[in-house]
Amino acid sequence: MLPVKALTFDVFGTVVDWRRSVAREAAAALDPLGFSLNWNAFALAWRARYQPAMERVRSGGRGFVKLDVLHRENLLEVLEQFGVAGLPDAAIDDLNRAWHRLDPWPDVLPGMARLRAAYPLAALSNGNVALIVNMARRAGIRWDAILGAEVARAYKPMPEAYHSAADMLGLAPAEVALVAAHNDDLKAAAAAGLRTIFVARRTEMADEGQTKDLEAWDGADLAAECFEELADRMGCP
Amino acid sequence: MLPVKALTFDVFGTVVDWRRSVAREAAAALDPLGFSLNWNAFALAWRARYQPAMERVRSGGRGFVKLDVLHRENLLEVLEQFGVAGLPDAAIDDLNRAWHRLDPWPDVLPGMARLRAAYPLAALSNGNVALIVNMARRAGIRWDAILGAEVARAYKPMPEAYHSAADMLGLAPAEVALVAAHNDDLKAAAAAGLRTIFVARRTEMADEGQTKDLEAWDGADLAAECFEELADRMGCP
Repeated sequence: MLPVKALTFDVFGTVVDWRRSVAREAAAALDPLGFSLNWNAFALAWRARYQPAMERVRSGGRGFVKLDVLHRENLLEVLEQFGVAGLPDAAIDDLNRAWHRLDPWPDVLPGMARLRAAYPLAALSNGNVALIVNMARRAGIRWDAILGAEVARAYKPMPEAYHSAADMLGLAPAEVALVAAHNDDLKAAAAAGLRTIFVARRTEMADEGQTKDLEAWDGADLAAECFEELADRMGCP
Repeated sequence: MLPVKALTFDVFGTVVDWRRSVAREAAAALDPLGFSLNWNAFALAWRARYQPAMERVRSGGRGFVKLDVLHRENLLEVLEQFGVAGLPDAAIDDLNRAWHRLDPWPDVLPGMARLRAAYPLAALSNGNVALIVNMARRAGIRWDAILGAEVARAYKPMPEAYHSAADMLGLAPAEVALVAAHNDDLKAAAAAGLRTIFVARRTEMADEGQTKDLEAWDGADLAAECFEELADRMGCP
């Protein structure tokens, strides 16, 4: 059991299955309009533009803008890439909010309910507040606080994103753990002084299994196969 | 019924009965040490230093610091004013967290449960995030998001505090209502473009009833006697 006083969570991939959810939402929006695409490839292509778009903000190339804005700019490019033209603005806005309608992995709600009895749980995501609020209300996820990029005005893996979350929880970095399925995120959190918990999500990137982030990095404080096992490991009945 | 998409709430006085709760916490901390004070007067004296302390930040006289810090500075002065000396730092820290342990008015939990079925509910308080998180976990209050001073880095009634909350909810100011028991707060919210809802808390300042904020200001969009009546007025069964 880790000696921490709060748990923070990466969201895309760790809490929710963005790939299948975005593929489903894109199909629901575009199939009735006569577009027949590889929806999985569409979701992956949209997500592939995520890090480069944030990198422009992290590097100072542009001021902070919330993820909804980056997602929409990226969506316009992906629609063009897949030959989808002529969508009205309202349809683009609604499809952009696919990221507000992502489904949690099946272990998330029962695991978080157990963890929340002992620890405050905060989102520490690059998703903006409204995105995380809408996702949580739809899925029944209960956050004690929504922290992360928009509140910190810094995208992970900038150290400010992790430091801001600990500070707003009224805790020292070492009193806070980040739960994430991505070792790069955990390494940046550890460098910022947080404790780190790896949870495996081996089909995040592909149904047949991905090639990266299959196991926890050596420096992780704890590793679990799912949120239910994490609750076991944290002594939460 | 107001045409809004989210409800934000003032917290001290509107959601929680700070005066009786702080008096109780001060008595619980200091009576066993042999201090016999007028606990109600102690709570009022502590709160009386709240606006002047924030005003130094609002006016630019000092940089933004979270309310826990202002509360602690004010507590040291109030302890001296009431002749309480010799408290160890840990006891002062714990008494300072009295503001994390405030009780909601009796209509708050049932009213918010009804409102939350239809609207995202966000704290829009001058209290810092950890204070609101700890209060909510202890009392069973369910917030969809904790916004307000620390997240905006601006204390109400600065317009930035209200604008930041609407922006983070992904809404225009006019799509958001502030619920508050204080007309000054509502007037500032209205000036920032929000809709306003007055809820009466006529014993906030005194058991026998206060002299201010007995009725809604003329410009309020809605007024209710309690959160349950507010849920009725907002059409939330």
